[in-house]
Amino acid sequence: MAYNIPSLENLIDKFASLPGIGRKTAARLAYWILALDKKDAEDFARAITDAHEKVHQCPVCHNLTDAGKCSICSDPGRDQSVICVVESPRDVNAIEKTREYKGLYHVIHGLISPMDGIGPEQLYIKDLVVRAANDQTKEIIMATNPTVEGESTAIYISRLIKPLGVKVTRLAYGMPVGGNLEYADEVTLYRALEGRSEL
Amino acid sequence: MAYNIPSLENLIDKFASLPGIGRKTAARLAYWILALDKKDAEDFARAITDAHEKVHQCPVCHNLTDAGKCSICSDPGRDQSVICVVESPRDVNAIEKTREYKGLYHVIHGLISPMDGIGPEQLYIKDLVVRAANDQTKEIIMATNPTVEGESTAIYISRLIKPLGVKVTRLAYGMPVGGNLEYADEVTLYRALEGRSEL
Repeated sequence: MAYNIPSLENLIDKFASLPGIGRKTAARLAYWILALDKKDAEDFARAITDAHEKVHQCPVCHNLTDAGKCSICSDPGRDQSVICVVESPRDVNAIEKTREYKGLYHVIHGLISPMDGIGPEQLYIKDLVVRAANDQTKEIIMATNPTVEGESTAIYISRLIKPLGVKVTRLAYGMPVGGNLEYADEVTLYRALEGRSEL
Repeated sequence: MAYNIPSLENLIDKFASLPGIGRKTAARLAYWILALDKKDAEDFARAITDAHEKVHQCPVCHNLTDAGKCSICSDPGRDQSVICVVESPRDVNAIEKTREYKGLYHVIHGLISPMDGIGPEQLYIKDLVVRAANDQTKEIIMATNPTVEGESTAIYISRLIKPLGVKVTRLAYGMPVGGNLEYADEVTLYRALEGRSEL
């Protein structure tokens, strides 16, 4: 490499290993780190080890937490009868931001994807079924992404849970708010038509 | 914040403080760190402190190095009579990649920019003049970026150095190789016409 400085090369390699960061951006970030005060650089490094040490999965819903149970599972004010199933903790955050949903979550940490060698047994589906079988549970909302993998995972899980007599629902498809008919793809537009409601 | 996990918030803040990284990307990177093995997360953190500790400026040219003098200044095979002046260590790397330049460098670490409160005294210009005054030095190549600040910094430095009887040159302006006349701005095209050479 042109830099000839192993510790700098190594830092660039680390940044370049992050998702969506190419080598040029990685170099820019590494130079930025070098220009920090000693204390700020150490704080940055400590933030990584700190978060990695403290944050773990909630034993109930597999959302991230630094406590025993996550803040949602341990909140008695949440509606215990509804469980929203999502792919990742970031999706929990996205739904929480709507401030509309008051139920619980279950994070399965991935989607079924035979192409990538990910089957149902690699995901947290088994203990979702156990939670669904609990008498409290009235509804499971499948909120996986509207992609092929998200769709087939939702269908797979609904087939496991429906026999337990629990209602299984799916997020609505349709036009994104603020979207433009002209730029919508046909499948979305078809789904928006199909799901039309009376005014 | 919606995450409710201070150590995770802190890590997201750190990533978001990097140049060009917004909060959504920062969150994605932080989750990626959490998903690493313990060893990989520690290696990442150590890469930051390590690079920050080991890498410093070359006392001669202010390029980055982990040794006493940088690898270019301490290479007797380089042409000691030419010094190429650049804004940042990344520019050294860009020019080295051409494999055409065999002289030395001088990194001034910034550009004169009164709008940002950066004057010549904040840049490594004084010791460039000292180097230029050395009998060995025959030519100074101004390779600052072709922007307003790059241009005015080049002119400022050339006015300091020319009286010493040293040749001061500037990178050529013109069409980028592989570029398209249609998309070139007028100033570039004008400069390309002005700098035309015989075939």
